[in-house]
Amino acid sequence: MLAEIKGLNEECGVFGIWGHPEAAQITYYGLHSLQHRGQEGTGIVVTDGDKLKGVKGEGLVTEVFSQDAIQELKGTSAIGHVRYATAGGGGYENVQPLLFQSQNGGLALCHNGNLTNATALKYQLEAQGSIFQTSSDTEVLAHLIKRGGVSSHKERVKNALSMVKGAYAFLIMTENEMMVAVDPNGLRPLSLGKIGDAYVIASETCAFDIVGAEFVRDVLPGELLVIDDNGFRSEMFAMASNISMCAMEYVYFSRPDSNINGINVHTARKNLGKQLAVEVPIEADVVTGVPDSSISVAIGYAEATGIPYEMGLIKNKYVGRTFIQPSQSLREQGVKMKLSPVRGVVEGKRVVMVDDSIVRGTTSRRIVTMLKEAGATEVHVIISSPPIKNPCFYGIDTSTKEELIASDRSVEDIREIIGADTLTFLSPKGMIDAIGREEEGETRGLCLACFTGKYPTEIYPSTLHPYEKV
Amino acid sequence: MLAEIKGLNEECGVFGIWGHPEAAQITYYGLHSLQHRGQEGTGIVVTDGDKLKGVKGEGLVTEVFSQDAIQELKGTSAIGHVRYATAGGGGYENVQPLLFQSQNGGLALCHNGNLTNATALKYQLEAQGSIFQTSSDTEVLAHLIKRGGVSSHKERVKNALSMVKGAYAFLIMTENEMMVAVDPNGLRPLSLGKIGDAYVIASETCAFDIVGAEFVRDVLPGELLVIDDNGFRSEMFAMASNISMCAMEYVYFSRPDSNINGINVHTARKNLGKQLAVEVPIEADVVTGVPDSSISVAIGYAEATGIPYEMGLIKNKYVGRTFIQPSQSLREQGVKMKLSPVRGVVEGKRVVMVDDSIVRGTTSRRIVTMLKEAGATEVHVIISSPPIKNPCFYGIDTSTKEELIASDRSVEDIREIIGADTLTFLSPKGMIDAIGREEEGETRGLCLACFTGKYPTEIYPSTLHPYEKV
Amino acid sequence: MLAEIKGLNEECGVFGIWGHPEAAQITYYGLHSLQHRGQEGTGIVVTDGDKLKGVKGEGLVTEVFSQDAIQELKGTSAIGHVRYATAGGGGYENVQPLLFQSQNGGLALCHNGNLTNATALKYQLEAQGSIFQTSSDTEVLAHLIKRGGVSSHKERVKNALSMVKGAYAFLIMTENEMMVAVDPNGLRPLSLGKIGDAYVIASETCAFDIVGAEFVRDVLPGELLVIDDNGFRSEMFAMASNISMCAMEYVYFSRPDSNINGINVHTARKNLGKQLAVEVPIEADVVTGVPDSSISVAIGYAEATGIPYEMGLIKNKYVGRTFIQPSQSLREQGVKMKLSPVRGVVEGKRVVMVDDSIVRGTTSRRIVTMLKEAGATEVHVIISSPPIKNPCFYGIDTSTKEELIASDRSVEDIREIIGADTLTFLSPKGMIDAIGREEEGETRGLCLACFTGKYPTEIYPSTLHPYEKV
Amino acid sequence: MLAEIKGLNEECGVFGIWGHPEAAQITYYGLHSLQHRGQEGTGIVVTDGDKLKGVKGEGLVTEVFSQDAIQELKGTSAIGHVRYATAGGGGYENVQPLLFQSQNGGLALCHNGNLTNATALKYQLEAQGSIFQTSSDTEVLAHLIKRGGVSSHKERVKNALSMVKGAYAFLIMTENEMMVAVDPNGLRPLSLGKIGDAYVIASETCAFDIVGAEFVRDVLPGELLVIDDNGFRSEMFAMASNISMCAMEYVYFSRPDSNINGINVHTARKNLGKQLAVEVPIEADVVTGVPDSSISVAIGYAEATGIPYEMGLIKNKYVGRTFIQPSQSLREQGVKMKLSPVRGVVEGKRVVMVDDSIVRGTTSRRIVTMLKEAGATEVHVIISSPPIKNPCFYGIDTSTKEELIASDRSVEDIREIIGADTLTFLSPKGMIDAIGREEEGETRGLCLACFTGKYPTEIYPSTLHPYEKV
Repeated sequence: MLAEIKGLNEECGVFGIWGHPEAAQITYYGLHSLQHRGQEGTGIVVTDGDKLKGVKGEGLVTEVFSQDAIQELKGTSAIGHVRYATAGGGGYENVQPLLFQSQNGGLALCHNGNLTNATALKYQLEAQGSIFQTSSDTEVLAHLIKRGGVSSHKERVKNALSMVKGAYAFLIMTENEMMVAVDPNGLRPLSLGKIGDAYVIASETCAFDIVGAEFVRDVLPGELLVIDDNGFRSEMFAMASNISMCAMEYVYFSRPDSNINGINVHTARKNLGKQLAVEVPIEADVVTGVPDSSISVAIGYAEATGIPYEMGLIKNKYVGRTFIQPSQSLREQGVKMKLSPVRGVVEGKRVVMVDDSIVRGTTSRRIVTMLKEAGATEVHVIISSPPIKNPCFYGIDTSTKEELIASDRSVEDIREIIGADTLTFLSPKGMIDAIGREEEGETRGLCLACFTGKYPTEIYPSTLHPYEKV
Repeated sequence: MLAEIKGLNEECGVFGIWGHPEAAQITYYGLHSLQHRGQEGTGIVVTDGDKLKGVKGEGLVTEVFSQDAIQELKGTSAIGHVRYATAGGGGYENVQPLLFQSQNGGLALCHNGNLTNATALKYQLEAQGSIFQTSSDTEVLAHLIKRGGVSSHKERVKNALSMVKGAYAFLIMTENEMMVAVDPNGLRPLSLGKIGDAYVIASETCAFDIVGAEFVRDVLPGELLVIDDNGFRSEMFAMASNISMCAMEYVYFSRPDSNINGINVHTARKNLGKQLAVEVPIEADVVTGVPDSSISVAIGYAEATGIPYEMGLIKNKYVGRTFIQPSQSLREQGVKMKLSPVRGVVEGKRVVMVDDSIVRGTTSRRIVTMLKEAGATEVHVIISSPPIKNPCFYGIDTSTKEELIASDRSVEDIREIIGADTLTFLSPKGMIDAIGREEEGETRGLCLACFTGKYPTEIYPSTLHPYEKV
Repeated sequence: MLAEIKGLNEECGVFGIWGHPEAAQITYYGLHSLQHRGQEGTGIVVTDGDKLKGVKGEGLVTEVFSQDAIQELKGTSAIGHVRYATAGGGGYENVQPLLFQSQNGGLALCHNGNLTNATALKYQLEAQGSIFQTSSDTEVLAHLIKRGGVSSHKERVKNALSMVKGAYAFLIMTENEMMVAVDPNGLRPLSLGKIGDAYVIASETCAFDIVGAEFVRDVLPGELLVIDDNGFRSEMFAMASNISMCAMEYVYFSRPDSNINGINVHTARKNLGKQLAVEVPIEADVVTGVPDSSISVAIGYAEATGIPYEMGLIKNKYVGRTFIQPSQSLREQGVKMKLSPVRGVVEGKRVVMVDDSIVRGTTSRRIVTMLKEAGATEVHVIISSPPIKNPCFYGIDTSTKEELIASDRSVEDIREIIGADTLTFLSPKGMIDAIGREEEGETRGLCLACFTGKYPTEIYPSTLHPYEKV
Repeated sequence: MLAEIKGLNEECGVFGIWGHPEAAQITYYGLHSLQHRGQEGTGIVVTDGDKLKGVKGEGLVTEVFSQDAIQELKGTSAIGHVRYATAGGGGYENVQPLLFQSQNGGLALCHNGNLTNATALKYQLEAQGSIFQTSSDTEVLAHLIKRGGVSSHKERVKNALSMVKGAYAFLIMTENEMMVAVDPNGLRPLSLGKIGDAYVIASETCAFDIVGAEFVRDVLPGELLVIDDNGFRSEMFAMASNISMCAMEYVYFSRPDSNINGINVHTARKNLGKQLAVEVPIEADVVTGVPDSSISVAIGYAEATGIPYEMGLIKNKYVGRTFIQPSQSLREQGVKMKLSPVRGVVEGKRVVMVDDSIVRGTTSRRIVTMLKEAGATEVHVIISSPPIKNPCFYGIDTSTKEELIASDRSVEDIREIIGADTLTFLSPKGMIDAIGREEEGETRGLCLACFTGKYPTEIYPSTLHPYEKV
């Protein structure tokens, strides 16, 4: 549903736990806390040491899992997934974790990210007789593992990982062990925690707080963790190189209470707001942020400038898949779905409206209009990231340049389109500094590809057009 | 679900529209914006000038109404309701609007509030042969109207209203007109708006903003509005007296983007925060508010004191009726459902935690513990209202004194129970001034009964024990 | 769904049990065995001695009651109902038992039949201020009971029964007793049985066999049974007069394994077939019956004539509310829904097709066509009842004369319309003799009103047009 | 649900249509008429010439397919399946048709029967890296086809068929053609029909009657039909050998209105009854059959002996997946679920009870007891097939000898266990003659393996224990 507001969607969140009597239920709460990373499908697979068993479905965590379903998932270890449906298309089949049963045992996988060479690999595998159940890139890894020959399971996983490219945080589970891997560029976050003797893995640390787990450390780029009843062992399946954590994780995707590589997201955003105050001095009466991601930024901006922060925009809640969309005529009459302006706050005021990014521009235009109709005399839009000029191939739903308003327009053109009095984007350097990482680097680099076009991994023709037949 | 967090629940929100081709769908959006006022049941009744027709069910607006259901509700006028289930018990039957068909036509009613003499009236009506379909106090008014003899419908409504006591905002609809009434003390909010030529009525003005309606004016205490295809006519069915708008509407219930009697709720809350800054000077590192109602207060407090506002607590979303409750063992392990602390923000800090009220104290204790476990070195709790010492009989779910932690305990005792380093409540006078109304008064009084025990209407023995047989 | 096949629908089956620890579940099985009497709604109300509690819904018994729902219905006594929706219209509200809660306790009612003066009574009651929750005639009795003044509950029930006219088999339950009543003409069947110390009541004795109950006796016309923890007591609330059991109960409605007033339905039907053999000698190769009601008749006819009985028509099963209706074009292509011919049996044969009645004639025409298309060289239709010329006002859905093909047409005209080679109806006398009752009489009369127009009770203008306002 | 009654379950029915604008809806009706062959899951896949698309689910045809779902299945050709869940286990994944998408197009398969070498083939395929999505033997064929190398699709299908053994009737569909194949022994029925220019395929001819199709001919053992927009072409993929149509198709599985290889099932059953009359002369008062499969037999027996046929047992309808099972205590009290005796028919009578087979004996014992409790003075059980002594490996759910009461017991022992006064099985020769086929033969042989232990195909160790790992 965020699609409409933002046009920016990530494809996944993952959660896993090894060695806890209530593994499925803890995974349920973990996934619930990661719901913002994907609302279109979710699943859990458990192992009881003997057999893998799963439940999955389209919809929210609270829609897919009933009390009965969770109780049926007896087992002491589990992996789970929430998903946004773009990559590979929708449908029950594509909901993860994918679960493959064979006469030698089961294999369950889920992942966050996007493989850039999935189409090419799939083509080769099908030519060799592989049948794919899904249109998901995740399944490619399963086939690579299965075709890995006579070596040990771990070797086969490592060999398979050596063939895939792109951004990924994988959880792979058999009856007896869980494997965890992050791509060598570290494009997607993944952290390790502990509840008593049980290990937990999650895309964001907020999941640890929800389930009462203690943070241990982040999973490293190129690292393969093997977790079983003896604890966990680490080895590198590839050299980490050109570390590039997705900048938009800080700016937009992650929950404010998560820490990514040791940096708290709310704090990073507040710093973005303070940096904006430095870069963009505006005379105004109130500062307001577009909920939820820009509230922290707006508060930082208000604190730094002294302009009072006000709740000028309210997000409507309880919006799920079954929400009835207004007809065109109602939309024209001003029926609002996601956001409404607080007239009592903005009327007669010069408003600074803080947002995290502009993708297609339609949402920004709608919000500016809304604020003006509610009586704002001026609306100054400030954006806590640079203009997005390039598509992301690492799991964020901005697949083509054509959709990106900034790909071929000046800031002034965009300002005019969205109807703001002024429009300012944060500078790349300001963003990097505020977050507290580096543009590139061995340990603290950021992926800025959507702003700069500089992709940290190979990109293939089939990545550019993933749904066409090669 | 708020029950667990707060122990404070109101019973209803109402919405009505007269004279619009998409009446049902607009009511759907209106109710959706009032969802915070009641999440346990909802219904819509429409009239097409010839017949009343309704759909209702237990659950959220998005759960109860399907696209098909809304399309079936053809008609140009509608009333709708969202409800919290306490008063009168749960069950499909009690979901409003109540719809009564007779050979002379239909009658639909819904209301927000609570009648203090419902039990006595019901007893008398049953003795005369009335059969009640529901355990709701709303139905009492329907019987009084029906038994009103040969006078006109409007006279019968007025006579019926003259017999009920307590707090109410009623919507009453027949095939040809809608009647709207607020109790003579004005205990519950109700406002009139317009979309083109159509009139809309809502418990809160936020509903107007969502559906693109223009605010016209508040419905007055003791006023009966009759709306039909000729417009609206107003008359007083009772003298307004001792105006007493529920103070908790400002402090807790209403959405920040609503205006109640001309006062914006977010602004009122921010003023409560500023007033707290005057009354409670604290040395601390960060200010945080319990979402959602105390965010505005905390921002006001931060602005006035200069202590930075931080997002120290996050509310988990997507929680609906189907959310699986954690087992006792998981609860003890620290699994959180509604709120989680932001470790990166509170760790090592002296925290001011702002909340709107303390009912049973269990939630406050849980939050204080959560913050300390997340590393807060001190937790100073400040409350934006005085201690709640008395039950409410006007539609808020605090039915017995025994449940109220403040009914017989000192502030110091409560502080110890909740484990805070300091605890301060706002003074009654501070609250009144910050909101900008008066303790009593002809036009701008507040009901402070839950704080002071001074009830603006008669209270009967059967009001005190509404569920026992007389 | 039978509506389409036959155009004859009855409105109800009732089941009750007093004094059994698994009252709700037994009622579930009892209602399931009565499902053929009504498939559009069903409900169960239980009492645990302290409170009445119910579950009801639209659909089949297996659709409405989940395991959980039945387990929630704790109590030792119960009444239940299956319903066909015509009288009083559809909708959840009209599903029975109706349950009325008051401060003096609850009252649950359900009934099979139709009150001929319901509209007039309702009009009077509404004029006195009664509010009706439903459009069902059953509710009229509830209001009459409630308005019965200060006398005992039993006296009020008897007084109320003295005011209603028509056909009925009522079950009335309070927390502490169940009352059972049949109209003075005995138009609808109702029997008393026993399981251990528990008493059971059912519209048909097949329900006793299903739940392992022993048949005790039929409830008498004009009898009021009061059942409570002390057993049952009988008294007459009215003199039985002009006993008139509905003939169509034998011919069409009841299950073949039920006994009505001591006569087994299958046996009665077989006798109808033998009587047809006497009245209608036909030269043919095979006899076939329209399932299910005419199978027994066809077997009797075959046995008496020596023409072999064959399964020439098959009924498709598993047809429920969710069955997708074929489009007009598919219908024209010959897609069949309810019945299909057995080509291997009828091809090249002269077929006697036995059916129980002809209402509108459309079904008969369809079946005759079907048989001919499957290769039957001749189709001789014999009907095990006389032509239906008059509407039924006692609970069978043939409300207007216009719908009845036989109301103004000769047998020859009907034959031509349905396309049969010959068409013969059973004579009234033959039907009476075969069933083994009498046309009129103190104890064994039959209601033949739909054939003869001679109604055993008063009929009012409002009975004729029940849905118009008086 | 028949499992409990009979202990005999077949796994499937298939239906296909090529070249009709309402392909999905016709398939819906076709599957509905085959519902008796499998009630646990069903699916439909359509092609619009460009893409395969499917809907499937667990439950009945009327439960799985909504109107909307069928309308979404736009396309001019379709295959569908109903399934009984035993072979390969339950679960959504195993519901057929299986649908595999690849970059070269889609492949959909469904089948009726059982492959005896599936486990061995699967083991080999997995060793080569194949990943199986299901535990169904059907998927093995898909992998064999996909791995078939560079030859044409038809060649790959033929090669794949040359590797599988056992009993099967396969439907295989791509975007552009449908392939249809029956095993060389012809163990499972499959027929070809026509609606206008469209071809239809069905497990039983009753499906043709329902959808208004004309019978063309049976699909031959070893035949591969290729159907596309140019019509159909036939070729043999294997020499037909040792033709062995499953005898139980006539005795139990098929609908009476179907013809199998030109023999009407109702007629065959009636002949079985007549043959029983020759083999088993009994002095009795009434003949009754266990519904539904033994009704025809009982009628034949009655006709031949002159003992009147009566409806002594009634089957309860409307039983679906959601039917609540009676508790043990209710079962002991005599609550009946599937069948009830007709007391009015059997009381005081010597009853011949006809059934089609005895598997575990529990059902027979229950029915005999039921009849005696209802007053039958003698119960003579006659069975229209010989004793089942051996498991079936061709798709009928009698997997182990241990379950079969007749595997190691004399007829007298079985009689004593089921409590009958006499018990007689039909002789093998009598059964063969009555059906009108031969024990073995080039064109009209019957598979009698379950009676004789003489299996027409190879049986492997893994066939005997299909669920153990090899």
